[in-house]
Amino acid sequence: MEKKKRIVIALGGNALGNTLPEQMAAVKITAKAIIDLIEEGCEVVIAHGNGPQVGMINNAMAALTRENPNQPNTPLSVCVAMSQAYIGYDLQNALREEMLIRNIPDIPVTTMITQVRVSADDPAFETPSKPIGHFMTEEEATLAAEKYGYIVKEDSGRGYRRVVASPKPAEIVEIRAIRSLVNDGQLVIACGGGGIPVTLQGTHLKGASAVIDKDFASRLLAEELDADCLIILTAVEKAAINFGKPNQEWLSDITTEQARKYMAEGHFAPGSMLPKVQAATEFAESKPGRTSLITLLEKAKDGILGKTGTSIHQ
Amino acid sequence: MEKKKRIVIALGGNALGNTLPEQMAAVKITAKAIIDLIEEGCEVVIAHGNGPQVGMINNAMAALTRENPNQPNTPLSVCVAMSQAYIGYDLQNALREEMLIRNIPDIPVTTMITQVRVSADDPAFETPSKPIGHFMTEEEATLAAEKYGYIVKEDSGRGYRRVVASPKPAEIVEIRAIRSLVNDGQLVIACGGGGIPVTLQGTHLKGASAVIDKDFASRLLAEELDADCLIILTAVEKAAINFGKPNQEWLSDITTEQARKYMAEGHFAPGSMLPKVQAATEFAESKPGRTSLITLLEKAKDGILGKTGTSIHQ
Repeated sequence: MEKKKRIVIALGGNALGNTLPEQMAAVKITAKAIIDLIEEGCEVVIAHGNGPQVGMINNAMAALTRENPNQPNTPLSVCVAMSQAYIGYDLQNALREEMLIRNIPDIPVTTMITQVRVSADDPAFETPSKPIGHFMTEEEATLAAEKYGYIVKEDSGRGYRRVVASPKPAEIVEIRAIRSLVNDGQLVIACGGGGIPVTLQGTHLKGASAVIDKDFASRLLAEELDADCLIILTAVEKAAINFGKPNQEWLSDITTEQARKYMAEGHFAPGSMLPKVQAATEFAESKPGRTSLITLLEKAKDGILGKTGTSIHQ
Repeated sequence: MEKKKRIVIALGGNALGNTLPEQMAAVKITAKAIIDLIEEGCEVVIAHGNGPQVGMINNAMAALTRENPNQPNTPLSVCVAMSQAYIGYDLQNALREEMLIRNIPDIPVTTMITQVRVSADDPAFETPSKPIGHFMTEEEATLAAEKYGYIVKEDSGRGYRRVVASPKPAEIVEIRAIRSLVNDGQLVIACGGGGIPVTLQGTHLKGASAVIDKDFASRLLAEELDADCLIILTAVEKAAINFGKPNQEWLSDITTEQARKYMAEGHFAPGSMLPKVQAATEFAESKPGRTSLITLLEKAKDGILGKTGTSIHQ
């Protein structure tokens, strides 16, 4: 029997909906795309973002503290943990159900609470820039800064928001357990929201006020699992150079050298397509034979069959 | 090499503290007791309650909905899922750290989001009696009943609370993944809060407005993993007959027949010691050689060594 192609999929948090009813609808579409890949004979591992979801949970915990001052503030790392369960529970059920509906032998599906270690020396901690949670007035922002040590910034004229660092992932703490299940042929949801960010302090893993980019966490997960392919799913079918300009050009098949050149030329938007191309390129560079694919969720199967998407390879 | 003794531990949610700082202190004590058992050569699987924690999360999600009426209500099943991550994250870290401190070869530790199927026909659904969440005024209770279909009851003169059913666990949905890791010698935290309660509706697993008793879920987990021992940790060192009376007698070593007799005689408090003795008895009855132990967290090691606790066996 031919060895199955192992794929790590990075799902966008935005694609999972802003509310629970939206999520329950979204995971059905997601499950179809993923089970398509399994029917194509691939071995799939799933990572995902959590932007809207961790924002909602963070707001809920803050609302509780406002109503009851005896309720301690809930750190962002704990909110990330809860978002992994909030998303994973629905997603694993949708995957299980899609296998049942298609009458294919069901594979055990599980969500693993995953911590991702970052370096306390990561320069990102010096310039926190990722806004999270709800908007605050200047007064609320000042209070939050005093009370919880939050770093707050004015956000596009709409008020103040907390900003946190987005450090690079250094280690997936639960990788051995994830690897065990994946090697056993099981379907694992891991590194949700980029993983719970922790720093090592002596023997202790301490939650960090940070969010890890899920594309970078997925890249690390793919490397650690010796995957053949990293698929980054997003809102466009392909990446483009000269995006939105008359000479815009969709990218179908590029080498890592080309990708590096286009990144250096500033073709990809920071915080949007840039981290995706960067993570995809790094994965393709990490070992001969590894390829990355950037495409739409609904096109994942076509992408794996070489029919669409932006493929990046050595 | 002698086969390791496989133990499923049922931890009380109350022992995990009411707030995050309390939990972070409590998991350190819990981790010591569990790593003691690992040092004794046991293979350990951990299940736990979530009473205070799921109540807190349920309150936070309700506070968010009160502040923002566009925010849909969060079902209890989703709150249970989040509580598994909230507790598991801290507990797995404390376990990992305790192994490092003792300089013993560290075992991968993971929290698995676990669903437990209950029967939609379970008679418990007809008489919901388990109070959860915060107290409400009569007006709020009426509104919650109308808006969310909650069943509310007056609770000991302190106001109204939502009550939910406590059905019996029928199946642990993620058991194959749990078994894989346990058989691989890894340390797994599963069935948190008794598991996310779901009922099977066609191909769909639907979240149920219920809480599953963690002692019964732990019993099922122990049976499914073919464990040798079920340890139910509680606030007393031993169960007793004629509890609180002049002829009170601590129980050290009893047969399942004796346990059945004492239960029938009404020696154990419903909702407190009774479900523990019942779960312990059912496990010991399920296969020759299986034993159960009810004791204090701090006495778990002494209990395994036969020095204390209430041991129930065939």
